[in-house]
Amino acid sequence: MKITDLKTIRFKSQSCIQRDPIGHAHPGPAMDTVTTMYVIETDEGVCGYSVPDSYNVLNPGAAPQAWAGGDSGDKTANAVAAGSGAGFVEKRLKPILVGEDPFSREKIFNILYKMQRGGANSALTDPLLAHIDKALWDLYGRYANLPVYKLLGGHRDKVLCYASIQVGDHFKGGLSDPEDYAAFAKKCVEMGYPAVKLHTWADENWGGNNCIGKPSVDKDIACCKAVREAVGPNVELMLDCFHYYDRYDAYKLGKAIEDLGYIWYEEPMEEYNVSSYKWLKSKLNIPIIGPEVAKGKNFTRAEWIAGGVCDIARVGAGDVGGITPMVKTVHLCESFGIPLEVHSGGAASLHIMGMMTVPGRYYERGMLHPFLNYCCPPWLNRMIDPMDEHGFVQVPQLPGLGYDINWDYINENRL
Amino acid sequence: MKITDLKTIRFKSQSCIQRDPIGHAHPGPAMDTVTTMYVIETDEGVCGYSVPDSYNVLNPGAAPQAWAGGDSGDKTANAVAAGSGAGFVEKRLKPILVGEDPFSREKIFNILYKMQRGGANSALTDPLLAHIDKALWDLYGRYANLPVYKLLGGHRDKVLCYASIQVGDHFKGGLSDPEDYAAFAKKCVEMGYPAVKLHTWADENWGGNNCIGKPSVDKDIACCKAVREAVGPNVELMLDCFHYYDRYDAYKLGKAIEDLGYIWYEEPMEEYNVSSYKWLKSKLNIPIIGPEVAKGKNFTRAEWIAGGVCDIARVGAGDVGGITPMVKTVHLCESFGIPLEVHSGGAASLHIMGMMTVPGRYYERGMLHPFLNYCCPPWLNRMIDPMDEHGFVQVPQLPGLGYDINWDYINENRL
Repeated sequence: MKITDLKTIRFKSQSCIQRDPIGHAHPGPAMDTVTTMYVIETDEGVCGYSVPDSYNVLNPGAAPQAWAGGDSGDKTANAVAAGSGAGFVEKRLKPILVGEDPFSREKIFNILYKMQRGGANSALTDPLLAHIDKALWDLYGRYANLPVYKLLGGHRDKVLCYASIQVGDHFKGGLSDPEDYAAFAKKCVEMGYPAVKLHTWADENWGGNNCIGKPSVDKDIACCKAVREAVGPNVELMLDCFHYYDRYDAYKLGKAIEDLGYIWYEEPMEEYNVSSYKWLKSKLNIPIIGPEVAKGKNFTRAEWIAGGVCDIARVGAGDVGGITPMVKTVHLCESFGIPLEVHSGGAASLHIMGMMTVPGRYYERGMLHPFLNYCCPPWLNRMIDPMDEHGFVQVPQLPGLGYDINWDYINENRL
Repeated sequence: MKITDLKTIRFKSQSCIQRDPIGHAHPGPAMDTVTTMYVIETDEGVCGYSVPDSYNVLNPGAAPQAWAGGDSGDKTANAVAAGSGAGFVEKRLKPILVGEDPFSREKIFNILYKMQRGGANSALTDPLLAHIDKALWDLYGRYANLPVYKLLGGHRDKVLCYASIQVGDHFKGGLSDPEDYAAFAKKCVEMGYPAVKLHTWADENWGGNNCIGKPSVDKDIACCKAVREAVGPNVELMLDCFHYYDRYDAYKLGKAIEDLGYIWYEEPMEEYNVSSYKWLKSKLNIPIIGPEVAKGKNFTRAEWIAGGVCDIARVGAGDVGGITPMVKTVHLCESFGIPLEVHSGGAASLHIMGMMTVPGRYYERGMLHPFLNYCCPPWLNRMIDPMDEHGFVQVPQLPGLGYDINWDYINENRL
């Protein structure tokens, strides 16, 4: 079989997600945006698709203001569009893929990964690479008539999830103070979530475009304490906080949530400060999880594990460039007996969790906010990750990644 | 899909391979033996098979004597039959597999691997586990209509091979002295092999059953030198010698072959003496390859790599229990940038090499001996690893592992 085309299908959509200047998602006024689907076609008619698979609408009455210096729309689509647009895919990637056997994922991945070196192909970001790789896996599953997790030897057809709460904001009744978090965490538990992860504040300079400021560790601690009190001792809690604390602030916050019985501590410091993570790990008993954003795919994760930098490893499709390097990271973690928690939701995460035998406790569902309803994107006929009343998400059972594409919506809105 | 049966098909065959008391293969008088094929059946009619895939016949005129204290027949079949017989498969393994989804390889592997702990299931050796795992991969490929290396994202449809020469013996004109090795290595190069690996002597007490003795490092060095002189400077050579030298003998031999331009040095010491390997690695520049026989699957390989115990990693289907842990080892090596050379020939090795992107230079073909003709087993219609005139072996292209089974032969000889 040969690949005959790699194309992008761009269509109009709406988004209630806005980005603050440093890129975190918050609720925003509904705005027009563009969503991109990646399509790989073959000479045997089988195709593979990759498309963003999370979506939110504003709850009735919620009217968050626009963020000064922020941006709107889907993160992955933005990240890809910003660096590349359809032009890069058409001019640079398509000629590489066309003519290749679509099952030669290792070859294709290795060509694309090596293209990422240096600045010449900076448009080939990891999120874009992830879309190409995901489309190849989707194609493979559609050809073999199996969901991706079964291609990978998987067996779990459902996984427990946690409510992943958005980064703190300045919206009263949203995520503006510890009380807001406590109320929303309690609501998440009532909705059926067996565990909750907080993202506390990323900057005190809300409403401005100054991103240099540092949030308050004391406010973070107050927030974590209020949430623990609200949900009681039996709900598992995790913290992902401001990512640029120094080691002493990171220690103070980590010790506080260790005492509050939180089960992991995520990215409190610059991830390239590997020696600070080693220092922090030596001081705390709460498991430290990472890396998430440090570049270097499974290579960097290998060094974090062998070097004793983290207690729990972390990998996401967009972080490392797709399912292919996620699988390698799973195998790496299993070989060292290191737990792995998958970053971010979506089809790739669910299929990876379905195949993992190394511990990976939770699927990250969301991100959630009091103002938002996390729901099915209009370009899909069914949600990729519906949760049942026991807090489980079903791994998609359709062949491939499990996208049930709403072609009517896409064709009506196609650009 | 559900597994409905796991069965063994045992059939009479002949073998010209005998085993010395410590298990190495040598040419022997043709003797009756039993070959076992493993079959996994499903409720949808798709089956998977695993069967030994290498074979030898004696060359005309060759009449090696039987080895005192040795054994006859296929190594894998022997290893499996000795510990288990069909009874263990029928009584202990079949109830575990029946009813499982055959695509749940990770689940099945993890159940079987945990059964290997302690002595209760000592019949569940890694070679037996490898047969079960290989049959699952064969089934998967037959279902998806793809050869296993494409299931794994592979792209190389041929791989270079080396002539793997059997362990030294006491047969004049066989492998009894450096001149024998030199003549046979030269013949291998004339046959088209681009590289040659020697296995020198494993014991000086030939003809007896005393295995305590130690071969001569000086004779090994003379042999390696004679072979280098016979094949010239442009043929790549490797050495796998006696496995129980002390560090100083191991250093002396390693330094000699380093000076002779050999490209790797294999298992000169007990592999559980990890600190001796670290010591040896610090003293030599020639790459040290391993582990091969040390138990612990990909877990042990992870520690060898992270601990700086080897320069090149090594993995074989029978050593670690199948394709599933081989894939994990490949991903581990790739994540650390460590080369990997696959141990032993056969379908599993070829498919793994077809998917590897981490360097793995050579397929190990054989093992070969001046008295033997390495050829197609009578229970297959075609050889799994025919070599072309440029030293390449084609990765099998049939769906699954690529066995073209001769059912007539099997049914005629079935026990």
